Amino acid sequence: MDYKIIDVKERVLADNDDAAARTRALLREKGLVLVNLMGSPGAGKTSVLLRLLAALPELRIGVMEADVDSDVDAETVSRAGAKVIQLHTGGLCHMDADMTARGLDALNAEGLDLVVLENIGNLVCPAEFDVGADLKMMILSVPEGDDKPLKYPLMFTVSDVMLVNKMDAAPIFDFDLAAAEARAKALNPKIQVFPISAKEGRGFEPVAALLRRLVEERRGGK
Amino acid sequence: MDYKIIDVKERVLADNDDAAARTRALLREKGLVLVNLMGSPGAGKTSVLLRLLAALPELRIGVMEADVDSDVDAETVSRAGAKVIQLHTGGLCHMDADMTARGLDALNAEGLDLVVLENIGNLVCPAEFDVGADLKMMILSVPEGDDKPLKYPLMFTVSDVMLVNKMDAAPIFDFDLAAAEARAKALNPKIQVFPISAKEGRGFEPVAALLRRLVEERRGGK
Repeated sequence: MDYKIIDVKERVLADNDDAAARTRALLREKGLVLVNLMGSPGAGKTSVLLRLLAALPELRIGVMEADVDSDVDAETVSRAGAKVIQLHTGGLCHMDADMTARGLDALNAEGLDLVVLENIGNLVCPAEFDVGADLKMMILSVPEGDDKPLKYPLMFTVSDVMLVNKMDAAPIFDFDLAAAEARAKALNPKIQVFPISAKEGRGFEPVAALLRRLVEERRGGK
Repeated sequence: MDYKIIDVKERVLADNDDAAARTRALLREKGLVLVNLMGSPGAGKTSVLLRLLAALPELRIGVMEADVDSDVDAETVSRAGAKVIQLHTGGLCHMDADMTARGLDALNAEGLDLVVLENIGNLVCPAEFDVGADLKMMILSVPEGDDKPLKYPLMFTVSDVMLVNKMDAAPIFDFDLAAAEARAKALNPKIQVFPISAKEGRGFEPVAALLRRLVEERRGGK
């Protein structure tokens, strides 16, 4: 064999990890916390974000809205008073570390405490790409079903936090919260699970407390 | 510039289109109809499939269950008595034409009328890959929201049919069926829209009639 084989995917992921490491160093330098918010289309990423903005009035929060197309979410979040930037992935199914770094640069995060990246609605691709965030927070919504950790295992394996949204709809769906939690923890024993309802504004205080703690730790030099 | 630039994505999609054309020729030769069933995680692809199997007892139907991992859906569909094969994409976020052709070969579709490919739960990637199907049928579920055509336009642009599932849950979600339909039709005036409830078994007769018609046309040599 006299030619070189390049594993494109391995190369892409290795380059991505280098870019993610650079973003992590930059975040520490700037005293800034970055959260990567992921979930299926319609899981409630934007509604959850609006509830977290309301629960954390003392923090200066920036938002990067990633979308394949459109800027409906950026409009909504902007009306809530957050500093927001819209990122279009041009058809791509996820954000990678390089796109995230360019987003942070364009957002001009100077003076902010926390930046939330609202990733593309997708349970597959975003799980593969470390964007350099301090916290990977994924949303599973009740109507999607409690079997999703079995079917999209990587997302549940890499996430630090699983928010179980639309708990208000639990009575009309066959959703077993304990089963969903057990399936996620079988993949990832450290995952923290918070049942919430963005519609009713329930369950956000412990999530807000977790983000507040991350900001305080970063200020303390961690 | 003395080196060649290869657009990897263009090359991949061109190869895919060649494979899809080969599958189309094979389907006509064998008198077989192939449906590509797509939708977000938890939109109800498997439940819809079970309802369609029950509504079409006179057809010999095969199912290809594509999953990143696991075979929970294949088990469910197999218990319903369909000829089923499980395809694992190995982490990949969509089925392409080549994987589909290999699936059809492994399913041994000889003697079947209709094969349904249940694609990976994802509104982004599967829209990009023509698998050679006669019909692209996508599911939007009510809890996902009526704004999804704005955010994931390609899926709605390429699909022939949009099933709006979980209509039973419409009273508790702010879902405007007319708005969802108008947004899909703005992208794709020819898209056929069917409101359904897999939970309650409502709305499937016109969808079954459409599939029956495709099978008859194929038998007639189309």
